[in-house]
Amino acid sequence: MSYEKLQLQPLFDTIDELKPKFIERLQKAIAIPSVSGDETLRPKVVEMAHFLVKELTTLGFADIELRELGIQPPPVTDPKLELPPIVLGRFGKDPKKKTVLVYGHYDVQPALKEDGWSTEPFTMFHDEVKDILYGRGSTDDKGPVLGWLNVIEAHNKLGWELPVNLVVCFEGMEESGSLGLDELVAQESKKYFKEVDQVTISDNYWLGTTKPVLTYGLRGCNYYQIIVEGPGADLHSGIFGGIIAEPMTDLIKVMSTLVDSIGKILIPGVSDMVAPLTDKEDALYDAIDFSVEELNAASGSKTSLHDNKKDILKHRWRYPSLSLHGIEGAFSGSGAKTVIPAKVIGKFSIRTVPNIVSKTLDELVFKYVNDEFKKLGSLNKLKIELIHDGAYWVSDPFNESFTAASRATQDVWNVVPDFTREGGSIPITLTFERELGVDVLLLPMGRGDDGAHSINEKLDVSNYINGCKTLGGYLHYYGKA
Amino acid sequence: MSYEKLQLQPLFDTIDELKPKFIERLQKAIAIPSVSGDETLRPKVVEMAHFLVKELTTLGFADIELRELGIQPPPVTDPKLELPPIVLGRFGKDPKKKTVLVYGHYDVQPALKEDGWSTEPFTMFHDEVKDILYGRGSTDDKGPVLGWLNVIEAHNKLGWELPVNLVVCFEGMEESGSLGLDELVAQESKKYFKEVDQVTISDNYWLGTTKPVLTYGLRGCNYYQIIVEGPGADLHSGIFGGIIAEPMTDLIKVMSTLVDSIGKILIPGVSDMVAPLTDKEDALYDAIDFSVEELNAASGSKTSLHDNKKDILKHRWRYPSLSLHGIEGAFSGSGAKTVIPAKVIGKFSIRTVPNIVSKTLDELVFKYVNDEFKKLGSLNKLKIELIHDGAYWVSDPFNESFTAASRATQDVWNVVPDFTREGGSIPITLTFERELGVDVLLLPMGRGDDGAHSINEKLDVSNYINGCKTLGGYLHYYGKA
Ligand SMILES: [Zn+2]
Ligand SMILES: [Zn+2]
Ligand SMILES: [Zn+2]
Ligand SMILES: [Zn+2]
Repeated sequence: MSYEKLQLQPLFDTIDELKPKFIERLQKAIAIPSVSGDETLRPKVVEMAHFLVKELTTLGFADIELRELGIQPPPVTDPKLELPPIVLGRFGKDPKKKTVLVYGHYDVQPALKEDGWSTEPFTMFHDEVKDILYGRGSTDDKGPVLGWLNVIEAHNKLGWELPVNLVVCFEGMEESGSLGLDELVAQESKKYFKEVDQVTISDNYWLGTTKPVLTYGLRGCNYYQIIVEGPGADLHSGIFGGIIAEPMTDLIKVMSTLVDSIGKILIPGVSDMVAPLTDKEDALYDAIDFSVEELNAASGSKTSLHDNKKDILKHRWRYPSLSLHGIEGAFSGSGAKTVIPAKVIGKFSIRTVPNIVSKTLDELVFKYVNDEFKKLGSLNKLKIELIHDGAYWVSDPFNESFTAASRATQDVWNVVPDFTREGGSIPITLTFERELGVDVLLLPMGRGDDGAHSINEKLDVSNYINGCKTLGGYLHYYGKA
Repeated sequence: MSYEKLQLQPLFDTIDELKPKFIERLQKAIAIPSVSGDETLRPKVVEMAHFLVKELTTLGFADIELRELGIQPPPVTDPKLELPPIVLGRFGKDPKKKTVLVYGHYDVQPALKEDGWSTEPFTMFHDEVKDILYGRGSTDDKGPVLGWLNVIEAHNKLGWELPVNLVVCFEGMEESGSLGLDELVAQESKKYFKEVDQVTISDNYWLGTTKPVLTYGLRGCNYYQIIVEGPGADLHSGIFGGIIAEPMTDLIKVMSTLVDSIGKILIPGVSDMVAPLTDKEDALYDAIDFSVEELNAASGSKTSLHDNKKDILKHRWRYPSLSLHGIEGAFSGSGAKTVIPAKVIGKFSIRTVPNIVSKTLDELVFKYVNDEFKKLGSLNKLKIELIHDGAYWVSDPFNESFTAASRATQDVWNVVPDFTREGGSIPITLTFERELGVDVLLLPMGRGDDGAHSINEKLDVSNYINGCKTLGGYLHYYGKA
């Protein structure tokens, strides 16, 4: 794919020059333990919002706002706990330019040194030998959020005009369910976000550790629970075993009919809804840098259901899967407890893909589960319900923004990025697409081994700095397209 | 069954006379919160032992000992926590008389008013309208323990000689696994317990609420766990769903093959080991006071697997059953968690009956589970293990002690007792039978609705007082037999 190269070398050189300052900016951000899931740290989450406001102000952003989202709904310890605000800002308002909204989150996952971190999680550690920055939030998502700010700083220093109008939308509750975000995006779609032509999210990761990727698809997830109940209370298996119908027996029987040991969904009609694989889509998998060995390394086992890269990726990205997660209400401790649980709730979910219709899927699942239960002739009662429903997302990897991002990536990394999808969901992607009616691009900065939600979360300096170049370059290619 | 009646009326009258004193004795005992499962209450358990020693001393027992059992093994908060002592005592040592050992426990289950008790659990409440004594330990097992002491007091008051030598063995850890008891019984079998001809335990309950019972059998319990493991750590179902073999899928499949929804054990060979039902045994079930409605009331549901009394009782007492208890390592909370658990441990147990050979059962279970797993063609690993093994117990309901107890019951209650078994196990029964090589009789005092381990535990005054008469009468009939 040849293309007309833009003259971005001065921008890239300036970003290199500013590297120490950019690393210092990340260090300051990591030092604020903005853990949204820990109520006692809520003031730190708010402090992080103010940190961003200060940075945006210094860089020359306009219309900077802290949007309050009100009281956090239960369950909370403090019934008056305020949600952290959403930070909005605008850089440029030229009607002749396209407007890109960039989304990121400034809250982080919990982290304690005692969890097994090699260094203090909220004190950035720069391993200068490996050139890696360690710390909670380094890759998820403070590095990428600051990446956009770094791009502006480099433009300011160069005296370059930004090739697009930029709108930033940074939230502080992403790691805790993005409470309040959907409503804000809906409200502002015709107001603050009115001119937005495109949304770019940098909050996912490369597939592996060496090759940049652009992400154009996410699976959805329909999460179900099967409730089986019989006795009025938990019973002792010595006294009641053999004389009453046990809910666990029925639940386990029904759960056993959902999927087989090689991952095939046994509910009729589900696979029929899956979009056929086109040659064009199939070809996209050829180039991708991945292997069975990488999967084995990631799962810590040799339990891959497929023996080749393409099948693995297709089953992760474009085919549905069904996982049995667990059972609520049954004995779950260690040791031996001779209980007959009175009410058990089996949990399973189906990862959805084009063109599965969520409602039709629910109907197929409900019918099948009820039919399987009827076959048992049990005296217990069964109920099945959908408890969560997140749609899948697929974009066109050959559209303007993906093409722009691909060119920027090639300029920076000297390689055509892999076009990937993800097995999991990023609900905010769908919110922006639906509410603003524009394309969304997922443009990750970090590597697949960054350990976003684990101990020793890190961001390679090369990913941080080249990531800034890629974000900046992307805005130029997109602005010219 | 006609028999030569002994002249026990003076004993029964004396017990009636002493009723206020016996109730006061129980009141004092209930007031000591001897909860063995609560480390902070351990001094109260010890206090309860000393209370018994004082009572035994006053009544004229000899060789009274508090046998220390050493430090309680982990898990404990206080690594130096001493086990409560076993109280031993002897009343009479006449070589011409038979010697009966009576076992009971002076510790109780935890109880808090906040659990839902109508009155303070450790302050005995005498409902004089219903003539019921409420309080933790009233029926389990302080009432029965004091019953034996009351029998001695009545003899003392009458100036009657006890028709047998009595040995008491009261432990303080029954509700917490009877730690140390097995060892003590084994040690003393040729010493303190050398002359013992018979062991009587009053620590279970009538089947219902109106008819006295004698208990001649208990099911055993073999408890198994199936461990399935694959990935090195828990995985996210979005990323790994559909591409790796999931341990939960395999475990649920294997667990689903163990038992069907009408309680039939599907493991070949298990039912073949069950002792055939003789006409004589079958006839025992005819007289028993029980109904489907009573089972429904007890289970709080209409999920009885059998539509008649005899089948219910046979399946509770003389047929094996298999219960699925739960899964360790899977998601067990409320809500939706999209985890693929890396290692899951399924728990199930089989209630055993004559003539199931425990070792053979293990072999059948292990082979079957491994075969069923192999059929799945899974890449995960499965292991099955036995984690607890308690033997069943059956005695001859027509032997000397049962006959004596039956006659005493008829004298007191004017009805032939039901000969019952129990679905659960009372391990100490087997310990005494095995270590002393003598018959054991289970002679309950309380009713089926006493709520031994629940809130509002109670003992009807009629059961307490008539229970004392039955215990006393039993010693006379047994002594003469
Ligand atoms: Zn994130
Ligand atoms: Zn995250
Ligand atoms: Zn007891
Ligand atoms: Zn008990």
